[in-house]
Amino acid sequence: MKVLIVHAHPEPKSFSAALKSTAVEELELQGHQVQVSDLYAMQFNPVASTADFASRSNPNYCVYALEQRHGVESGTIAHDIQAELDKLLWCDLLILNFPIFWFSTPAILKGWIDRVLVSGMVYGGKRFYDRGGLKGKRALVCLTLGGQEHMFGVESIHGPLDIMLRPLLRGTLAYTGMGVLEPFVGWHIPYISQESRLQVLESWRTRLQTLDDEPTLSFPSLDDFDESLHRRRV
Amino acid sequence: MKVLIVHAHPEPKSFSAALKSTAVEELELQGHQVQVSDLYAMQFNPVASTADFASRSNPNYCVYALEQRHGVESGTIAHDIQAELDKLLWCDLLILNFPIFWFSTPAILKGWIDRVLVSGMVYGGKRFYDRGGLKGKRALVCLTLGGQEHMFGVESIHGPLDIMLRPLLRGTLAYTGMGVLEPFVGWHIPYISQESRLQVLESWRTRLQTLDDEPTLSFPSLDDFDESLHRRRV
Repeated sequence: MKVLIVHAHPEPKSFSAALKSTAVEELELQGHQVQVSDLYAMQFNPVASTADFASRSNPNYCVYALEQRHGVESGTIAHDIQAELDKLLWCDLLILNFPIFWFSTPAILKGWIDRVLVSGMVYGGKRFYDRGGLKGKRALVCLTLGGQEHMFGVESIHGPLDIMLRPLLRGTLAYTGMGVLEPFVGWHIPYISQESRLQVLESWRTRLQTLDDEPTLSFPSLDDFDESLHRRRV
Repeated sequence: MKVLIVHAHPEPKSFSAALKSTAVEELELQGHQVQVSDLYAMQFNPVASTADFASRSNPNYCVYALEQRHGVESGTIAHDIQAELDKLLWCDLLILNFPIFWFSTPAILKGWIDRVLVSGMVYGGKRFYDRGGLKGKRALVCLTLGGQEHMFGVESIHGPLDIMLRPLLRGTLAYTGMGVLEPFVGWHIPYISQESRLQVLESWRTRLQTLDDEPTLSFPSLDDFDESLHRRRV
């Protein structure tokens, strides 16, 4: 299996970085090939802008998605985007590894999504959800957060975690066609003991040993919708 | 009323920019004071990093939220953050104006959230939701998207829009204590006629004339939870 880990944490000694290193070690032990995009170490530029396109299909007005198509087709998209896109297309499994910032990804990772998940190749027209361009690949989110498990759930203060993560799990990863696995969550990380943290790393390692047997989460199928994306009457 | 508009679109001639300009014009006509942070024009840096802190409370290990507290208290936080924070604290109404990228904010705006909504002042400890640090202010999201209105709803392909926006509306804006207004949505913008676009601008203008009478959306109250944030038995 080919695995791309996209890691985003501002502190190189963070627990999130330990989760990333554990994943590299465990996956390589299993004989998988692993590439890591450490966005902070790479000083990855997260800002989707006209500077991403050396040649423009419309120099007077930038529709970012249309320029992505043109840039990929003509081989003129920014080199840093092309390099990440190559890794993404290479991998069988994408792991996004990050701390929750405001119930979502740090901006540097959001920018990786904005810039690398290019229109035309990853999605476009009716190519999304179960017809998305990355169909056949799988995605796994590994996150750390300050909150505790009891703060997330239907009756809990923040509601269910999967609903807070919907724009990422459904709106992004499932949208591209990838099979999305249940997220791995490191709860309350800044406040727990060293021993508990080691247990989290061990759970992560164990989880990575059984990924092949895991079902993917359920998301909409375009089969249930008509050409104009109204739900079909059963 | 003092209004801060944070605008984020890579194309200066975009419809999103027209919504921003319409808001400035209409609000000033009403006699309000308006400041605009045009993040692309400012080349705003969205990456939360150790570079944000000239003086560190812990030089060996960066817990970003703790360094935010230290940086604000000691007046050593990065100047660009302080400038935005001053505008945020000044305003009575915050308008976030942007195109949807992957069912959420463009990375440059996510980074404004990551860096400017500083721990200690905006939130921290039990100061969140209806006890958040920005209580008394209001927030209004104005967004454009490619999708059509029928694609969002309980039975629709993408589910309800307010659920897709939950990390922003609830997890960010309501979390800080601000009263959150119903978002203003420009549907299907890249595909509609010039006439329809002008109608959207007109609806936006009308909406801005009646903000005072609008109820805010409902979010959790900390009164319903005990000290450890378990829900109180009624």
